[in-house]
Amino acid sequence: MSGAVPVRVTVWGENVHEHSARDRAAMAERYPDGMHGAIAAGLVELLGDAVTTRTATLDQPEHGLSDEVLGSTDVLTWWGHVAHADVDDVVVERVRQRVLGGMGLLVLHSAHFSKIFTRLMGTTCSLAWRNSADAELVWNVSPSHPITQGVPMPIVIEEQETYGEYFDIPAPDEQVFLSTFSGGEVFRSGCCWRRGKGKVFYFSPGDQDYPVYHHPDVKRVLANAVGWARPEEVADFVAPHVVDEPRPWFSGGGLTGAGPA
Amino acid sequence: MSGAVPVRVTVWGENVHEHSARDRAAMAERYPDGMHGAIAAGLVELLGDAVTTRTATLDQPEHGLSDEVLGSTDVLTWWGHVAHADVDDVVVERVRQRVLGGMGLLVLHSAHFSKIFTRLMGTTCSLAWRNSADAELVWNVSPSHPITQGVPMPIVIEEQETYGEYFDIPAPDEQVFLSTFSGGEVFRSGCCWRRGKGKVFYFSPGDQDYPVYHHPDVKRVLANAVGWARPEEVADFVAPHVVDEPRPWFSGGGLTGAGPA
Amino acid sequence: MSGAVPVRVTVWGENVHEHSARDRAAMAERYPDGMHGAIAAGLVELLGDAVTTRTATLDQPEHGLSDEVLGSTDVLTWWGHVAHADVDDVVVERVRQRVLGGMGLLVLHSAHFSKIFTRLMGTTCSLAWRNSADAELVWNVSPSHPITQGVPMPIVIEEQETYGEYFDIPAPDEQVFLSTFSGGEVFRSGCCWRRGKGKVFYFSPGDQDYPVYHHPDVKRVLANAVGWARPEEVADFVAPHVVDEPRPWFSGGGLTGAGPA
Amino acid sequence: MSGAVPVRVTVWGENVHEHSARDRAAMAERYPDGMHGAIAAGLVELLGDAVTTRTATLDQPEHGLSDEVLGSTDVLTWWGHVAHADVDDVVVERVRQRVLGGMGLLVLHSAHFSKIFTRLMGTTCSLAWRNSADAELVWNVSPSHPITQGVPMPIVIEEQETYGEYFDIPAPDEQVFLSTFSGGEVFRSGCCWRRGKGKVFYFSPGDQDYPVYHHPDVKRVLANAVGWARPEEVADFVAPHVVDEPRPWFSGGGLTGAGPA
Repeated sequence: MSGAVPVRVTVWGENVHEHSARDRAAMAERYPDGMHGAIAAGLVELLGDAVTTRTATLDQPEHGLSDEVLGSTDVLTWWGHVAHADVDDVVVERVRQRVLGGMGLLVLHSAHFSKIFTRLMGTTCSLAWRNSADAELVWNVSPSHPITQGVPMPIVIEEQETYGEYFDIPAPDEQVFLSTFSGGEVFRSGCCWRRGKGKVFYFSPGDQDYPVYHHPDVKRVLANAVGWARPEEVADFVAPHVVDEPRPWFSGGGLTGAGPA
Repeated sequence: MSGAVPVRVTVWGENVHEHSARDRAAMAERYPDGMHGAIAAGLVELLGDAVTTRTATLDQPEHGLSDEVLGSTDVLTWWGHVAHADVDDVVVERVRQRVLGGMGLLVLHSAHFSKIFTRLMGTTCSLAWRNSADAELVWNVSPSHPITQGVPMPIVIEEQETYGEYFDIPAPDEQVFLSTFSGGEVFRSGCCWRRGKGKVFYFSPGDQDYPVYHHPDVKRVLANAVGWARPEEVADFVAPHVVDEPRPWFSGGGLTGAGPA
Repeated sequence: MSGAVPVRVTVWGENVHEHSARDRAAMAERYPDGMHGAIAAGLVELLGDAVTTRTATLDQPEHGLSDEVLGSTDVLTWWGHVAHADVDDVVVERVRQRVLGGMGLLVLHSAHFSKIFTRLMGTTCSLAWRNSADAELVWNVSPSHPITQGVPMPIVIEEQETYGEYFDIPAPDEQVFLSTFSGGEVFRSGCCWRRGKGKVFYFSPGDQDYPVYHHPDVKRVLANAVGWARPEEVADFVAPHVVDEPRPWFSGGGLTGAGPA
Repeated sequence: MSGAVPVRVTVWGENVHEHSARDRAAMAERYPDGMHGAIAAGLVELLGDAVTTRTATLDQPEHGLSDEVLGSTDVLTWWGHVAHADVDDVVVERVRQRVLGGMGLLVLHSAHFSKIFTRLMGTTCSLAWRNSADAELVWNVSPSHPITQGVPMPIVIEEQETYGEYFDIPAPDEQVFLSTFSGGEVFRSGCCWRRGKGKVFYFSPGDQDYPVYHHPDVKRVLANAVGWARPEEVADFVAPHVVDEPRPWFSGGGLTGAGPA
């Protein structure tokens, strides 16, 4: 990733597994700073001065995504799972407007069912799944894409929840990764879209039951994706809007009545 | 369009201009049976026994789109303009689920701002415009696409409202028409997407101030689009949903620890 | 597939393994009428009167693809492996012109390296492979696509050569199948493109060492693909060509010098 | 464009109009350093130290595109018109291999019919045209794309040859510009594709009869396109090739015979 100006990343985490009676012990061991903490640390580790990060979580006022925070965010990452319904629609719409205006959005794993992702996609975003600690191989199908640089072919994740097709998404503008699982399933695990002026990247590895965000290749993918999703330097973060065209560009204007046969 | 089984089309019209103080006199002359009536008549004229049509309007109970009506609809056409906000969100979601389950949807002209279209697209769907009776030329950029069969190159519409770029939509899965206007603007006037199991076609010609739905080539495009958007014969109209994969397909399952270098 | 007029399919087979010293005994058992014979028989079995088939092979004059044969072919299927270089460039160009004019083309398995496919794609069409009788699962990622109707999810092929990514193709216009192999690889096994007025479908299952073309689901996919790839009824089979636009459509023509600010 | 390492651009020009009896006087006035000279100068003007340029022409040995020159080229621009057939197939294949290996390629105006472009696209690349000094408006349909930054909406070119649809190209991976002409035509004037590891951008403004490459917005588009098309820093410029997968990634490998229903 290039440029003298650091990209401003906000790492959003649902932060519920970290505190639930069922999961908190294992999570404290796996992710002592929360999943959001691990994701943010990975970006800093790989991008250094080229990035500034902060985290935001569901339990904070406005889920930590005030106008001020979003107004100084170039790329937002989103991980959620059990509490999608608890995310305030007002905040979701605020995030959506910012994406349409140019902010990058990285949607992670179970956030396929988040309000912000389903709202931007328009489809159900449903999928097939089985949580049985399968091995996942992440295959690169776009070898010169910026998101796929610097990772092995395939990325090997020893244990992960299985996600499988049919994944109900609009056809990606760019398909960059496909995953296989030791049980035989396939999943479109790395997908890019433009929506408005913003870029959206979905990346499926990252279940809370496994230490996936400590995986060096997964960290590399997320760092690459931040670089890919960052807005152009001149971004105004204003969503596209209606334009009145007051006057024609061409004069004359009518038909000749004599076009080519 | 083929097949022994007629395609069941419901033509939805907002039906507000037809009754407004400002427009009703002109509309009665231009569209004595309403715009929805004209659209439905055009389909019957061109498709004959291959189609059955009915109309539905905003002012009817449930906007004429009850479970029963939608449950027997293969393709829905949608024209709206000034009353998008009056369409009940419950009905919009019902239509969306039916589209994701396989129903075709034709979105017409100012319905780019309808709830159903913006909800399926995820973007603002905003555009540029000028209503000054420009000539519109509709150019075919997919010559073997079923929607573009049987129309001249270009289609000439003598007077139309101008729609221009930037049109804030997801990149179409298939671009079939591009329009130019005598004032110089360009517009992606014929766009195809798949969403879930359903197909969506947006076609921009058709402002209420002009008799566009009587134009023979426009009627042909809509008839072709009904054929393109109709579901496969085995459609179950169930939106994609979560699938539990109870057991792996491959045995063994673990990593060999000895993959290719 | 619909329509009163049968689709005219020519099944092209390289027909070399069938006669080679190394393979002929096994091939005679597996494919007594040749692979091309089996493919043609599968189409007739599933499509009946809706199709007429004939076969053509490398060893025939003009490889069985004279102007007359191609001139009465709606959809051509192509299987080749060891003798791509022996196919006459003149015949390849003839086929290409017919595809650009509207003929459908089904490219099968090792024909990813055929002259006609690489010429239409522009890329190397190279891939990864291992022939070790892996199981292949063919997953449907476009559930309402005509090519994927009537087959289970996934299609299970007990033994097949493994094809893996990176498959060097242009991004498909429509991705309909993805395959996994018991060794862990993934492959974009069902891909659609438009080229000129013609449609091209690549389908990877079908190595000569396995009886894949007798598999009922593979036969179904090929029959569906014939229906998808067939030209529109009005097809003229003329490739796109240069058009002189003798006169403008709009009069006036110059800039107003006063467009919207 | 960013990065400490300058991008190495080779500007290829056919250089025939510059010397033909018919055109040389007008060309000497319009493009005293040749069209290639003007294109190269525009890149230097806008990119400064971020670029190094050299030019190459048809009349040079190997058309100026030796292994050594291509081996030190990150992005190649190509303008040709009347002498496409005179370009040596060996050089064309050399360029193609370099593109598939990662070199960016900018294809300009009448080079739609160049051997390198038609070979990479697979289609005829034919179009409609009329040379009558129409005004051209270049509309941006991808507002956050790096190629469209810093230019007005639309770009106004006072006089240009008209190019119109149908333009026989594969559906672009990204559509960034659409042009209208004062005569009413439309053209997909800015199109992006990936081929192998390389990126290809076609941009249509630039007929030899008009001073288009001196237009500040056209220069900006080309400078942006160089930044977009440049290879990743780790590019090895090796085209994709066959990979033997010697061993499976997953053990076990057979079917369970007991997959999900």
